[in-house]
Amino acid sequence: MNEINKITPRTLPGFMELLPSEQILFNQMQETIKTSYERFGFLPLDTPIIEAAEVLLAKTGGETGKQIYSFSKGDTDLAMRFDLTVPLAKYVAINANSLAFPFRRYQIGKVYRGEKAQAGRFREFYQADIDIIGDGELGLMNDAEIPSIIYTTFKELGFSDFTIKINNRKILNGLFASVGETERATDIMRIIDKIDKIGRDSVATELGELGISEKSIKQIIEFVTIDGTSDDKIAALKALEIDNELLNTGISELEFVINGIRAFGVPERNFAVDLRIARGLDYYTGTVYETFLNDYPQIGSVCSGGRYDNLAEFYTDRKLPGVGISIGLTRLFYQLNKMNLIEAKKKSISDVLIIPMDDDLSLCLQTATKLRENGLNAEIYLEDKKIKSKFGYADKLKIPYTIIIGETERATGKLAFKNMATGEQKTLIVEEVIKEIQAS
Amino acid sequence: MNEINKITPRTLPGFMELLPSEQILFNQMQETIKTSYERFGFLPLDTPIIEAAEVLLAKTGGETGKQIYSFSKGDTDLAMRFDLTVPLAKYVAINANSLAFPFRRYQIGKVYRGEKAQAGRFREFYQADIDIIGDGELGLMNDAEIPSIIYTTFKELGFSDFTIKINNRKILNGLFASVGETERATDIMRIIDKIDKIGRDSVATELGELGISEKSIKQIIEFVTIDGTSDDKIAALKALEIDNELLNTGISELEFVINGIRAFGVPERNFAVDLRIARGLDYYTGTVYETFLNDYPQIGSVCSGGRYDNLAEFYTDRKLPGVGISIGLTRLFYQLNKMNLIEAKKKSISDVLIIPMDDDLSLCLQTATKLRENGLNAEIYLEDKKIKSKFGYADKLKIPYTIIIGETERATGKLAFKNMATGEQKTLIVEEVIKEIQAS
Repeated sequence: MNEINKITPRTLPGFMELLPSEQILFNQMQETIKTSYERFGFLPLDTPIIEAAEVLLAKTGGETGKQIYSFSKGDTDLAMRFDLTVPLAKYVAINANSLAFPFRRYQIGKVYRGEKAQAGRFREFYQADIDIIGDGELGLMNDAEIPSIIYTTFKELGFSDFTIKINNRKILNGLFASVGETERATDIMRIIDKIDKIGRDSVATELGELGISEKSIKQIIEFVTIDGTSDDKIAALKALEIDNELLNTGISELEFVINGIRAFGVPERNFAVDLRIARGLDYYTGTVYETFLNDYPQIGSVCSGGRYDNLAEFYTDRKLPGVGISIGLTRLFYQLNKMNLIEAKKKSISDVLIIPMDDDLSLCLQTATKLRENGLNAEIYLEDKKIKSKFGYADKLKIPYTIIIGETERATGKLAFKNMATGEQKTLIVEEVIKEIQAS
Repeated sequence: MNEINKITPRTLPGFMELLPSEQILFNQMQETIKTSYERFGFLPLDTPIIEAAEVLLAKTGGETGKQIYSFSKGDTDLAMRFDLTVPLAKYVAINANSLAFPFRRYQIGKVYRGEKAQAGRFREFYQADIDIIGDGELGLMNDAEIPSIIYTTFKELGFSDFTIKINNRKILNGLFASVGETERATDIMRIIDKIDKIGRDSVATELGELGISEKSIKQIIEFVTIDGTSDDKIAALKALEIDNELLNTGISELEFVINGIRAFGVPERNFAVDLRIARGLDYYTGTVYETFLNDYPQIGSVCSGGRYDNLAEFYTDRKLPGVGISIGLTRLFYQLNKMNLIEAKKKSISDVLIIPMDDDLSLCLQTATKLRENGLNAEIYLEDKKIKSKFGYADKLKIPYTIIIGETERATGKLAFKNMATGEQKTLIVEEVIKEIQAS
């Protein structure tokens, strides 16, 4: 055991691993999101990280995307989930007869993508998803409830200046049909999606490269840059009087959803129709969402999603329409933490460090037990070190209070209670200590 | 999109995937363990599921165990963690200068082992670990605190009749040295570990096959089957007066730890010295623990661990002794759930289902918001279905209360509040509803 060849310990690039003080913040964010999702009655789900490759890659026709982690074990081809939606589709297809519909589920879990390693890009990252799945049909009012959940969740995360941008894919698809470009709708939308990043001219150039006529390009760009309030935009869309059924259905749906969002109590400043939002996935079929922190547009969308007609069409003939959103938690945390924007609810796990002054731990244990029974986290410092080291430990872990217990305290039953931030020290009985901490 | 070749959806064998009602129970267990660990001041950690193969397999000298999921991505050999201890060793070796010692950390996460697929064996399963790591040294009192954490945690999980069995590897190693069998100590311990399962005679046979002399086998088996209370056993060990320093150190440590466990308030009926507990790993160097539910011995140990001299010897020269335990959460849940032994704290996520009787959602939304602001989970049924279907949904999800809101309720501001279990219906204002639910 003495002549071990050391291996250099390392964590893989693209895999986030936090120090405890950061992990506490991360867990608080995660817990806030979980609590918020449960407030709205979403059920928890925890699907495997590994799935049979043919199941996970059903949509891509078995063609393994380069980003997907796939491998074999024994005779089985396996793949690691790259999102939480495909596993949900599999789950609902398998369990449809056991579930109550609409099936409202949340899942917060790690997903894997072999992204190019660079700062802020992660290969292992958390997604925090909710979806509402209907059996055969799902009312449009659900599309209006989703922004109210986004709103509540981001408020709970401590944000107030954010905008949930809303559009409807039917509007875009209808527009493309009206200019005779249905076939290329997906490609066009992928380009339009970038208009905020690359600008109007570059979008026009890229659309031109696709072979779209100049007239159509002009119409498309004018259309998706219609300006004004949400109501202005809807009015402008109606005023166009384009004779396309899909487009007009999209406009009606968007109007219904916008009015619904208001009914669900989302303030006007926190949502807006944005006709440029397309979501670069051919997956969505109706309402689409993207959410931006207005002070930090460089982060990009922090919560996106939309309505889809058929969740599990690759697995079952059962029609399962749904609407959902996803928060890219790891990336969001990384960005916010880098900018020092996360406010800790509690900076430490322990509320109190109990410091014994000698070998008699009796009162220390009694005190710790009492504190724990009252819902407080209490830790006893058990190492034989100098008092300075013991206080140093509390400081390093940002534990807000210490209790020193020695002969005097055992004789009197009163505790030497210290506020580590102010340095103030008091002599209190344990019930008073509990009150002080709970009031802080 | 209409002629899609369906893929049969399936979840891999050995991968647990629960229905929502079971997932709620699982999450409650997990949350109870987490809360209990935090009560004792353990810090959260969340290491990657994938590590560089050479790092994860350092201990086995690069020789990939058959059970380990390993694969390549690009030029990198990767492996999925098979426990939470090796990633902890890596983490502490990397971050030692940033951590406060003793470093108390918990981690609850999935690990991967390609076990033979059979009922109750999982390839993906949760472990819930705590470890206390010292920098250079770590007081023996920590070994006494660990059982008090096991005790508190299993009490919180709803158990009372369980036994934490305790031994010390130095005693066993000292014994083997005294009979001249130090070289084969690990093999001998691996066999002894099975004495409860296979019996005394089979252990004797297996030890004989190893080439141990009959005399030594007799001594070893007599030794590890010393009977009586914990104090009896310690007294019997002392009375043997075997002149082996390691053994005598082990006896002193065991005695100190047993007295410490009493001082930490663990009742006599919940712990016991068991000289047969060896833990089949050459990893442990001192105190070892296994925990059994006395009514369900067939489950095996539900919480095991021990003391080790050197956590990260494969990565660093820094001496990092520690003591820790692990709960195999997935297996424990599977067994308990099968026997219907898990008592739900809450059977549903939603406390209330709000049922609108018409399209006017105003009071429904106000009510939901008020309930949520008071920490209750409230869900609005948004689908256009018959009232029977709406109540059926609440029943299926075991939601304990419903509130029906229509024209009358909007006119009076009073809500039709129904207890789904008793069928009792009351007309209440929202504040009264909140009080009723919180009191239930």
